[in-house]
Amino acid sequence: MNILAIDAAGKTAAVAVMRDDTLLYEAAANNGLTHSETLLPMADAALRACALRCADIDVYGVTAGPGSFTGLRIGLAAVKGMALPRQTPCAGVSTLEALACGLAGAGTVIGALDARRGQVYWAAFDLESHARLTPDAAAPAESLENFVFACKKPLIFVGDGAFLCYNRFKDVPGVLPCPQPLCVLRGAGVALAARRAALAGQTVPPAALLPDYHRLSQAERERKAREQSAQEQQN
Amino acid sequence: MNILAIDAAGKTAAVAVMRDDTLLYEAAANNGLTHSETLLPMADAALRACALRCADIDVYGVTAGPGSFTGLRIGLAAVKGMALPRQTPCAGVSTLEALACGLAGAGTVIGALDARRGQVYWAAFDLESHARLTPDAAAPAESLENFVFACKKPLIFVGDGAFLCYNRFKDVPGVLPCPQPLCVLRGAGVALAARRAALAGQTVPPAALLPDYHRLSQAERERKAREQSAQEQQN
Repeated sequence: MNILAIDAAGKTAAVAVMRDDTLLYEAAANNGLTHSETLLPMADAALRACALRCADIDVYGVTAGPGSFTGLRIGLAAVKGMALPRQTPCAGVSTLEALACGLAGAGTVIGALDARRGQVYWAAFDLESHARLTPDAAAPAESLENFVFACKKPLIFVGDGAFLCYNRFKDVPGVLPCPQPLCVLRGAGVALAARRAALAGQTVPPAALLPDYHRLSQAERERKAREQSAQEQQN
Repeated sequence: MNILAIDAAGKTAAVAVMRDDTLLYEAAANNGLTHSETLLPMADAALRACALRCADIDVYGVTAGPGSFTGLRIGLAAVKGMALPRQTPCAGVSTLEALACGLAGAGTVIGALDARRGQVYWAAFDLESHARLTPDAAAPAESLENFVFACKKPLIFVGDGAFLCYNRFKDVPGVLPCPQPLCVLRGAGVALAARRAALAGQTVPPAALLPDYHRLSQAERERKAREQSAQEQQN
């Protein structure tokens, strides 16, 4: 099974090509360019490096959220475009699961993304099996407290919200730092999560691939507030 | 500090660009092409992706061994060539340390490369601090037994010799498997090891960069055997 994995959920753009459980190619760029400039050339470079074409890809994997709303749409639109002609099966994977799948060991790993407004997107996974322990959620970092105290140690945070969480919980015994270069989302993590989804029969046709924003966009929040305030004035 | 990290010690070719502790770019290819074809284009792509030129690189990091004799020479020659014009400082890092630096957590990580002839190149590191626990060595996998039983658990093996070691020791409590895509040497690992060397003042001028083969090449072994047999006939 050839998997092309794509991530544009955060600042980093990442790609990977995996054949069965062999990683053929992986790249990640955090260069300040927009994903709309970097992502498709990176996917093209990945396929060329492996002497593959889109026709050779059996499953597309892509981070479907949480993450930057624009980034998620760029990643999903790119994969939809590549998968559409042959109706290649697609696996939209949790950005937090993909983060967790980039590390191995014993204990617990929490994928954490800076969600702004004092919140993190977070989910916990067993570090050895990558089995999910909590659902993806958006919450203030301090609300992780109960989980962090109770979970199996060691505990490690990955993702661009890792330092936010680590700084809050570093005095809890068994909470470990992760070097910043290893906190970055890896293409291999997306590919591993996509492979697991594919083996579990959880792929969808490209048209059914949808983002999972986990909260309303700013525009939707503002419209909701306007509607509510208009209704209150009517009453 | 801008670091360009290069690895051609094994089947995979890897590059990374790191600015201080931020990973700007990383790529690894395991595509069956020779390093002489892939390595310099990958380094070029890495620099271009970060809008950097060789003149912007403060330290070159390269895996200096153990590994494939030809691969090591290709990696070292590439770095010597890029570093020579400006006499940019170079850090030759242990391939096994670079492997270990690609993972984070608690316990012990053993970098293990298949050295053929029933042997592995191996060295152990603390998984949390990446501090070295044993020197790089070439030895039969079974000779790791004393270390494996005595070391801090969990214990994880990375590198193309990881499965060889894991299969031998998987029944030892605390010995964990590492998913194959995460066993591959990462450019980020080379960059992290090179950064540590640079901060410790352990860089050298490009001309002083040397491979660390850890054992005689086949040609040297055969010459030695011939010389010995000729001497025995003389006596």
